[in-house]
Amino acid sequence: MKIAVFGTGMVGDTIGSKLIELGHPVMMGSRTADNEKAKAFVAKHNGKASVGTFADAAAFGEIIFNCTAGVGSIDALKMAVEKDLNGKIIVDIANPLDFSKGMPPSLAIVNTNSLGEEIQKTFPQTKVVKTLNTMWCGLMVNPLMINGGDHNVFVSGNDASAKEEVKEILKSFGWNDKNILDLGDITKARGTEMYLPIWLSIYGATNNGAFNIKIVS
Amino acid sequence: MKIAVFGTGMVGDTIGSKLIELGHPVMMGSRTADNEKAKAFVAKHNGKASVGTFADAAAFGEIIFNCTAGVGSIDALKMAVEKDLNGKIIVDIANPLDFSKGMPPSLAIVNTNSLGEEIQKTFPQTKVVKTLNTMWCGLMVNPLMINGGDHNVFVSGNDASAKEEVKEILKSFGWNDKNILDLGDITKARGTEMYLPIWLSIYGATNNGAFNIKIVS
Repeated sequence: MKIAVFGTGMVGDTIGSKLIELGHPVMMGSRTADNEKAKAFVAKHNGKASVGTFADAAAFGEIIFNCTAGVGSIDALKMAVEKDLNGKIIVDIANPLDFSKGMPPSLAIVNTNSLGEEIQKTFPQTKVVKTLNTMWCGLMVNPLMINGGDHNVFVSGNDASAKEEVKEILKSFGWNDKNILDLGDITKARGTEMYLPIWLSIYGATNNGAFNIKIVS
Repeated sequence: MKIAVFGTGMVGDTIGSKLIELGHPVMMGSRTADNEKAKAFVAKHNGKASVGTFADAAAFGEIIFNCTAGVGSIDALKMAVEKDLNGKIIVDIANPLDFSKGMPPSLAIVNTNSLGEEIQKTFPQTKVVKTLNTMWCGLMVNPLMINGGDHNVFVSGNDASAKEEVKEILKSFGWNDKNILDLGDITKARGTEMYLPIWLSIYGATNNGAFNIKIVS
C-alpha cells in the first residue's frame, strides 16, 4: 500500500523506515520538495522511498501518517489538495506540544479539544485515527523491545473500519491484538494527548524513554 | 498519628477506613459538623473516628488527606484556620474534574497549572504531596487486589521529607517501594491530574475501574 509520511523528524523517519521494511512504498512529505532530511531518508532507502511536498505526498499516499510536530500539523495538512485527503485514513501520531514557553512543554490544544479532533473537524471527509502518540517512536515500530511486547497502544477514531485497518498496520509493527485498546471515537484523543505530561515526567524521573505502560487489572 | 480526612465521599471513606484499620485516630472533616455521611462513618468505626468541620479536622490532624472533590478543595481548605494547616503535610488525592458541562468531565485547572500546585501556592506554609489520584480508591488502599500489587503509584511535592513520610503511609497501605515513583516537585501534579481523561477512557472501554498502569521498560 502506498503510504504518505508527513514529517521529516525522528518520528517520520522511524515510521517511514518501518513501513518500507514491511514492503510499502513511502513518500515522505515536507514543506519543500528539497528538504535535506527527506532527501537523506530517500538516499538510505535506495529507491524504495521518495520525497515531495505535503501536496505531493498526499496525492501519492493511499493512507497518510501524520508525523509532523503537532503545533504545525493542521497547516501541513492544509498544504495538501483537499481531494487528495478526502476519503483517506489519516493516522495521527502527533502531539500538540508547545515548547514556546520553555520546558516542560504545555499542550496547545487541550482539555475540551485535541489535535486529533481538530484534524477531523478541519478535514471532515478524512478518517482520522489517533494512535501511537503515547510512546517513544522506537517502541511504536518495535514493541517487542520491552516486556516481550506486553504493553498497551491506544486507538481512537470515528470510523470503525479505518480503526480496523490501522490495527492491522499496528499488528504488522509487532503489536499483539490483546494490547491494542480501542478507546472509542476521536474525542478520546484528548486523553492520549493529555497523557504526554506524565509521560514526560516519568521519562524525567527514570532517565529512560524506552518505557511504556501496561494496563493491569 | 492523628489524621484529618477532608471529604465525606467514597474516597474519604475508603482512605479514612484504611487509616483507622492501621491504628490511626481519624477525624473526618466536612462543611458542617453534622454531615450525615461523616456521622455514618463515625458510627461504623465505633469510637475510632470522629467528625467535625474542616476547621475542627485541621486542628485535630497532624497530617491532612484532601479527599474532597477537586473543584471544591481550595474552598474546603480555606475553612480551616491557617495556623492549623501551616507546617503540616497535605496529601492531595483530589482531581479538579469539572462535571458542570456534562460527560466526560474536563479539568477545571489544567496544562500550565494543577490543583496540587494551586493548593501549595494558596497555603505556602504547608507541604503538599500529590499522590494516589491516578486510580480508583479501592486500589489506593489495597494495591494487592490486582497483579500481585505490581503496578505504579506516583508522588510529587516540593518537600523531600514530606514525600518520604507519605511513602511510608503508602507502604502501610500495601505499596511496594519499587512501585512508588517520585516524579519530582509539585508541578509534576499536572501530569498525574491530566492522566484522568485517559483513565476515564480506559474505564469506559474496559468497563472495569479496578485497573492501574504498570510502567514497563
